[in-house]
Amino acid sequence: MPRFRMSIEYDGSNYVGWQRQTNGHSVQGAVEQAILKLTREAALIRGAGRTDSGVHARGQVAHVDLTRAWPPHTLRNALNAYLGQARERISVLDVSAVSDAFDARFSALRRHYLYRIISRPAPLAIEAKQAWWVSKPLDHAAMHDAAQRLLGKHDFTTFRSVHCQANSPVRTLDRLDVTRTDDLIEIRATAQSFLHNQIRSFAGTLKMVGDGRWSPDDVTAALEARDRKACGPVAPPEGLYFMQVDY
Amino acid sequence: MPRFRMSIEYDGSNYVGWQRQTNGHSVQGAVEQAILKLTREAALIRGAGRTDSGVHARGQVAHVDLTRAWPPHTLRNALNAYLGQARERISVLDVSAVSDAFDARFSALRRHYLYRIISRPAPLAIEAKQAWWVSKPLDHAAMHDAAQRLLGKHDFTTFRSVHCQANSPVRTLDRLDVTRTDDLIEIRATAQSFLHNQIRSFAGTLKMVGDGRWSPDDVTAALEARDRKACGPVAPPEGLYFMQVDY
Repeated sequence: MPRFRMSIEYDGSNYVGWQRQTNGHSVQGAVEQAILKLTREAALIRGAGRTDSGVHARGQVAHVDLTRAWPPHTLRNALNAYLGQARERISVLDVSAVSDAFDARFSALRRHYLYRIISRPAPLAIEAKQAWWVSKPLDHAAMHDAAQRLLGKHDFTTFRSVHCQANSPVRTLDRLDVTRTDDLIEIRATAQSFLHNQIRSFAGTLKMVGDGRWSPDDVTAALEARDRKACGPVAPPEGLYFMQVDY
Repeated sequence: MPRFRMSIEYDGSNYVGWQRQTNGHSVQGAVEQAILKLTREAALIRGAGRTDSGVHARGQVAHVDLTRAWPPHTLRNALNAYLGQARERISVLDVSAVSDAFDARFSALRRHYLYRIISRPAPLAIEAKQAWWVSKPLDHAAMHDAAQRLLGKHDFTTFRSVHCQANSPVRTLDRLDVTRTDDLIEIRATAQSFLHNQIRSFAGTLKMVGDGRWSPDDVTAALEARDRKACGPVAPPEGLYFMQVDY
């Protein structure tokens, strides 16, 4: 069967998350529903990464096997038409035909995430569900400094949800940069794979550094504790964006 | 009575517009309601400009007279607390005490607006209500070129809603720049004041130039026609942002 790779954008605000669940409306379920309407095939799609409720994507990647060799742009446009009809906040950005060797999850070499913080005295109106509002001033240079303590191969038990299903807490973090543009602080994270809640745990911990309550040394100590209780408060989902997957 | 100037951000999606109306929920009404809850005063506020339903603001300015000389940051934080309680998508960015000579509407020297177009094949998910989606490629350089035909003092009858209440269709346009960053095309407009629907009429007309259906000369001809029927289709409200007012 022809296999297709899809790049998908979504506003995660009103979904239970990426993954199909028995109760609640998921992004995966909505895309599978659009495929069913178009093709009359109950195809299952596999995504490169799960995202929690409220987390957004600019470039989630999924693959699907269909019986017909659809022209990719026809498939994209038709799926978007059905998603639009259903008033989903999901858009198929790009479709391409790929070989059977391609697997959206297992072929991924690197995953890129962005965490957005807006630091200002007044609450967010336009971006209320698109960034984490922090009313205190944040020292982004200190946050970046502390973030560098987390790079490399570590046991990230401290920064892992107790619900994480991965076999091992060991991951290799390639990039964790903190930059600022006016009120906006952006944390960019890259790794082959991440643990559940890892980036939101990083963001919440780095915010403690940014507002002066933690030092970069406290971050090192938290990492070395390998204890979930050593983590700073987990940052809320609305700031997190799954940006891109490299294959 | 002490007079206060407020700078206000809002997501216009779920409002009938800035102006209080007998039926429908307005931004002005929501802010006045927050003032009433805080001060027990049925104060009326005056904004620098009216915005239509769906139009956003990053820096609407309004003034209000209150009996008490509130510390400005206390007033800002308290109003934001009441707006948040009421689940409004409105944020008071800044409050300052001003003299009686200040009038948000009549003291304004220049108003700045931004119109955002995202030009890409796939519909918008995250920014569905925050930009105008145009599926065709647009030539932003041609749009900018055509925009320069509109600068200066003109009878803008072509670019004015039939519902416009201004006495005169003559306005002086100081700036109409079109720039591009990846998929995003931004139109920045500045004038002392604008006619009703003027910027959305500009944006819709310039889009006709961008997709090649109109030439810059067609824009000059439309301006000179001084006829509403000569205007391109009016661009939708979700792309428009009231950015700033200079005093």
